[in-house]
Parts: sequence; C-alpha cells; structure tokens
Amino acid sequence: MSITLNPFIASIPANPLRALFPFAARPGMLNLASGHPSRDAYDHEGLAEALTRAGADFPSWTYGPSAGDPLLLTVLQEHMVEVPAGHRLLVTSGAQQGIDLAIRTLAPPGSTILVPEPVYPAVLSACAAVGVRAVGYGAAASDTAMAGLAEALDAAPDARAVYALPTFGNPTGETLSQAQRLAMLALCAERMIAIIEDDPYRALWFRAPPPPSLMALAPQVPGAVVIHLGSLSKMISPGLRLGWAIAPDAIATPMQEARQASDLQPNSLAQRVALHYLRLGRLDAHVARVRGLYAARHDALVGRLAAAGFRVPPVDGGMFVFVGLPEGTVREGLFERAIAGGVMYAPGPAFALKPGNAAFADLMRLCFVGLSDADVPVAADRLIAALRG
Amino acid sequence: MSITLNPFIASIPANPLRALFPFAARPGMLNLASGHPSRDAYDHEGLAEALTRAGADFPSWTYGPSAGDPLLLTVLQEHMVEVPAGHRLLVTSGAQQGIDLAIRTLAPPGSTILVPEPVYPAVLSACAAVGVRAVGYGAAASDTAMAGLAEALDAAPDARAVYALPTFGNPTGETLSQAQRLAMLALCAERMIAIIEDDPYRALWFRAPPPPSLMALAPQVPGAVVIHLGSLSKMISPGLRLGWAIAPDAIATPMQEARQASDLQPNSLAQRVALHYLRLGRLDAHVARVRGLYAARHDALVGRLAAAGFRVPPVDGGMFVFVGLPEGTVREGLFERAIAGGVMYAPGPAFALKPGNAAFADLMRLCFVGLSDADVPVAADRLIAALRG
Repeated sequence: MSITLNPFIASIPANPLRALFPFAARPGMLNLASGHPSRDAYDHEGLAEALTRAGADFPSWTYGPSAGDPLLLTVLQEHMVEVPAGHRLLVTSGAQQGIDLAIRTLAPPGSTILVPEPVYPAVLSACAAVGVRAVGYGAAASDTAMAGLAEALDAAPDARAVYALPTFGNPTGETLSQAQRLAMLALCAERMIAIIEDDPYRALWFRAPPPPSLMALAPQVPGAVVIHLGSLSKMISPGLRLGWAIAPDAIATPMQEARQASDLQPNSLAQRVALHYLRLGRLDAHVARVRGLYAARHDALVGRLAAAGFRVPPVDGGMFVFVGLPEGTVREGLFERAIAGGVMYAPGPAFALKPGNAAFADLMRLCFVGLSDADVPVAADRLIAALRG
Repeated sequence: MSITLNPFIASIPANPLRALFPFAARPGMLNLASGHPSRDAYDHEGLAEALTRAGADFPSWTYGPSAGDPLLLTVLQEHMVEVPAGHRLLVTSGAQQGIDLAIRTLAPPGSTILVPEPVYPAVLSACAAVGVRAVGYGAAASDTAMAGLAEALDAAPDARAVYALPTFGNPTGETLSQAQRLAMLALCAERMIAIIEDDPYRALWFRAPPPPSLMALAPQVPGAVVIHLGSLSKMISPGLRLGWAIAPDAIATPMQEARQASDLQPNSLAQRVALHYLRLGRLDAHVARVRGLYAARHDALVGRLAAAGFRVPPVDGGMFVFVGLPEGTVREGLFERAIAGGVMYAPGPAFALKPGNAAFADLMRLCFVGLSDADVPVAADRLIAALRG
C-alpha cells in the first residue's frame, strides 16, 4: 500500500505496559505489572444498584453535552472535587483523555513538554501522537528544592507545560511534600508555564491524607496555572472510563472544543452509572475499605521483598512501589524467569523516556493492589524465586 | 492569564449543531435540528436485559484492550460488519472518533483533506484541531461522473484523503449511486488517495437497501484504499458512544496507537452492553421496526412541506432531508420565528465550509426521526407558520 501516514502517529512508541496484557491472561499468572484494582476492591452491590437506576434513566441512552452530564458535574463537586473560582470542570474519558487534551491545548507540534523521569509511559504516547517533544526532569522526593525541575526548565525555555504526578506517583509511588509542591508552583509561575497535575491516586492514602494538590496550593503562588486531572478508575471502576479535568476557563473551553472534535462527548451511560453510584452515598465507606485493603497488601508485599534484599522506598498510598533489585541479582532473563514462574512485573526501563535507557534496569514497578490478600505473598515468593535463576 | 495556547486548538470552529442544544431544552420545543433518535425508536426492553447481563459480567468494570473487547469484535463481525482480508476492525467511541483517528493517522498538520460541501460540521472541527486544511468538493447525486470530486482532486494534488458520507448523507440525505461510488474509488485510486467512508446510517433504509459501501466495492478498483466507519448510535443507542473503524492493517494499527494515546481504550461497560444486546438476537426485528417508523415520519414531514412549497429532494433512508425554502420566503429572522413558534431546525449555513458562506442560506436540514408520529405534522405546521413571519 502506498498511502503515506502522518509521521507523528507513525512515531508513537508502543506502550510497554499495554504490551504486557497478553502475559496477564495466562492461567495462574499473578499480575504485579498492571495498575488494575482487584475484584474484591469494587463495590459490586453499589455498582449493580447504580446500573439498574441508570438503565431506567433515559439520558443514559442518548446524546449529552460535551462538557459532561450536568447532573454528574454537580454531584462530582458535591462529593469529590473543588473547582476554584474562574475554573471549569469537564468530564473526560479517564485521566488519559485529560492528559491528551491538556497537552494538545497547550502545546503545538514541535514544542516541548517537561515530564518527570521515570515517567508513566502513556504520557509519552500522548506527546508523540501530536508531535510534541517530551523532555525529562528529575522529581525525586529527596530533591527538596526541586532543583531537577529548575535545571530542566532553564534548559528548555520554550517548554509549554510541565506534566507532574506528585501524589503516589506512577511508577515511583513517591509523594512530593508541600514544600516541594510550592517550589514547583513558583518555578513554573515565574516562567509562565502551566502545570498539568495528574492526580488519579489521591484518595488511596494508607494512614494519612497526602499534601494538598498543586491546584489547591496554586492560590498561594501568584501567576501559577494548574490543570488538574482526576479519575474514577481507581476509586469506583476503570471500566467506566471516566475522569475529570479542572482548568482555568481560558484553557478549559478550548479543551472542551478539542474533546468535541475528538469524540463529541463523554459516555452517557457510564456517566449516569457514576451519577447514581455517587448519589447512593456509599463512596466514603467503600474508599475507606479499599484504603485498608491496599495498605495491608502493600505492607505484605514490601515486607517480604525487603527481607529478601529488595530496596523498597517509602510509599504512603496509591497502587505502586518502584523497588530496586537486591545486590547481585542476575538481571539477564529475569522477566522471562518471572513469567515462567507465574508472576509478572513492569520492568524499570518501561518508564524511561528513551527506549533502551539502562537507568532503570535495576528497578521494577510493582502494583500491590491487583491481587487478593492470599495471592500477594505467593507473588512475592515467586518473584524472589525468579531472582535465584 | 498569559499562557499561550496551541493555535490549532484555538482555531476549532464552534460546532453550530451543538450550539443549538440549549434551544432543544426549552419546554414544548419540537426539535427537527438534532440527529437524535426518538424515545420510541429504542429497544428499551432489550437494552434493559443487556444492561443486566453486562452488570453481572466482570469485564464491564475493568480495563480492556485498546482495539476493543475481543468478544464484541467477534459479535460485530457475526451481526453487522464484514472485514475484508488484510483489514482490521477497531471499536471506536462513536463514528466521530473514527473520523478523528482516520484524519490524524493520514494527515499531518498543514496537509489537506477533501470534504463534500455541504458537510457535516464535526468533520471540520476534527480537521481544525490538528491543523489540517479542509477543502470542499461537490458531491451531488446529479453529478453522475463525480466531476466535482475530480476537479477538487486536480486542484489539491497534495490531498491526503477524501472524506465521504455517500449513504443517506448528512446534511443532504442523498445517496451516491453505485456508478458514482465506482467513479469515486477510481478517481482516488489513480491518485493514491485514501477514502474515509463515514457510514452510520446504512441500516436505516426505507424501502430497499442502499448500494454497497465504498469498502465493499473497493476490490473492484485496483489500488483503492478505504477506511470504513460505522456506528451503533443510530441503530441501538447514541448514549453507548460506540462505533467501529475498518481499515487496512497498515492504517488500522497506527489508528489504534493514536486511540491508545488519546484515551487508552473504548468504554468497557458500554461494550459489554452492546455485546449482550447483539447476542439477544433482537437487532434485526428492532431495526426493521425503526425503518418503518422513520419512513413514515419522513413521508409525513416532506408531504406537508412539499404541499407548502418547500423544495424536497428524494431521500431513501437515514435521518435527514435538506429542504429548500419556498420561493419568496423572508429569510431574515426565520430561525428566531421558528424558535419562538416552538420548532427548531438546522440552518443551511451550518453546513458550509466557511462561516458566513451564503450558498446554503435557502436550505435547512431537518431530522425527521427525533419526533413522535404525533409531533411530526405539528412540527411541520409550526415551520410553515414561521415562514409567514
């Protein structure tokens, strides 16, 4: 075939996490790779009730506004999100669509976006698809002044935005302190660069809520501009494919136009299911239960791995921990041995900006929420066995 | 705020059809403007049954593949679509996402796509959002050799694709003959230009099925490349936001990558509802009933309008008719008089490539499917009354 493709689309890197899906389907596989809630972390009874109510509600079945179902927008503000003055709330198809719309709205082809490294790889796909260059910055919890970000900003004076995942990061699991957040806001505000704050894990804290979001802190930093992205995927159900974006009016309106041009509007049925679920008043108790489940699984997993010599950074919530392999591990063939032994993980290099970057070769991202309580220690033991070759 | 936006996104024209939504909500308004099925054109019983089954089916609630739920892909091929050898089927969020992905995959920023004029305006939004120039071609049913397309192709040697809606067109309601389809395929094949065939209305014929799709005819024309887009919105429910794209492997794979970068995957819950609905075996009877409903409403509407002097082109299916105002109509203030009289229509200029183009000022697009049998003649009478000023 002699049709020429758009080189931007042809350059999208394969998402290394989605490439792992086929392994997950193998019988008996214990999946520590994918960021999927386990079956016992859904409120099945509440969802069934919400589904029945949504089915009887005609707007589930027809077209709706591009910004989202007005009733859902109201209920989200009652239960989950605060929309600052001068800002608007949009329903998105998961936080990923929010990332895509924010990047496309702020960054023309050929421009630059700064992203933390290691990075959630779907951000790189969203940049590549529209010809936007992703440049990395360091964002370690130990970098209290955000010197890594300052350096990257100085080196990229044409950057159009900074993407950040400051709370229970993916893949790191790390959380930026309030001082780091204020430093990030100040660094971007003085350069008039917007921050895209990806915040899907905020509700999943173990023992104490995380620091306020960048959006909540922004009023303390004159000139700071934040686009805040959230999701129902980690709290209610990823299958609903619903998230939200909160942005200043002047950014939210073109984001909505871009969304309408892409796929007209959010899914009507899923929005009504979410609406009726939130109206049931079950969310707080459900999330509290999930927090307990996830904290226990985290502790069980990292306890076993730390005892086997893994380097385990502190994680206070979310779904992931980015662990270092024990000294002396034979890396060669480790992933294949793990798969053969019935456990899968996301290899560190999956989170590098450039394929083949060896910087994260001694690390693996483990999702501690997807397995049952009984399976977590089994998965840890299989991983430890795979190390031994 | 001093943040600079991507000029492509800032240039998206407001969708004039979505701008009509607020009028539709006025009490007592009879809506001939929007392409929405009426409540009695849904299989409510079948949808309720499908919803119950989907709720009990865990994949409804979690992540799934970017190309679509494998079971839905299978069932679509059993019931609705034929996928030629060397082609792949993708589930999309309505045909609009198919349009967006096809344009983005074929056309880099700065390149050209040919679109029929008058045109479905969301195609222009999809082009503008990615910096692609839309250039019009004539595609009247009377242009048997597709001379309008040949002329436009000759004038745009750099065109990357031709967008077409050849079956029960929007806004025209017209259908290209088989000879016109073969001419279109030949014109594009000899220039090695792909055709994006938007085909959401195919099943909604009144008395006889339409000619084969461009995709079905393509094997007769060596070198022809067609991306075929379909939708469940007009047959089952627009709220499901589900459609499909069929494209040659070399185009379908990057379309899937672009989709994954945009929003990861189609809605899991909606896909399972569609899967279970199609498995119920109710679709054929449902669509047969809808065909009868729509044909009767079309006949009732155009009969009354023709008697009042409207110029009514022949329409053999679908949802729309693009009628000419009677001679001597006072155009000034007509839309406002219609709204005040409780009826709304889509003004002809909404379908021009350039805002302010007066070419379609004497036309209006009427959707004859959204009102009940009882409301159709009332809407026609209100429209006729509005003409009188």
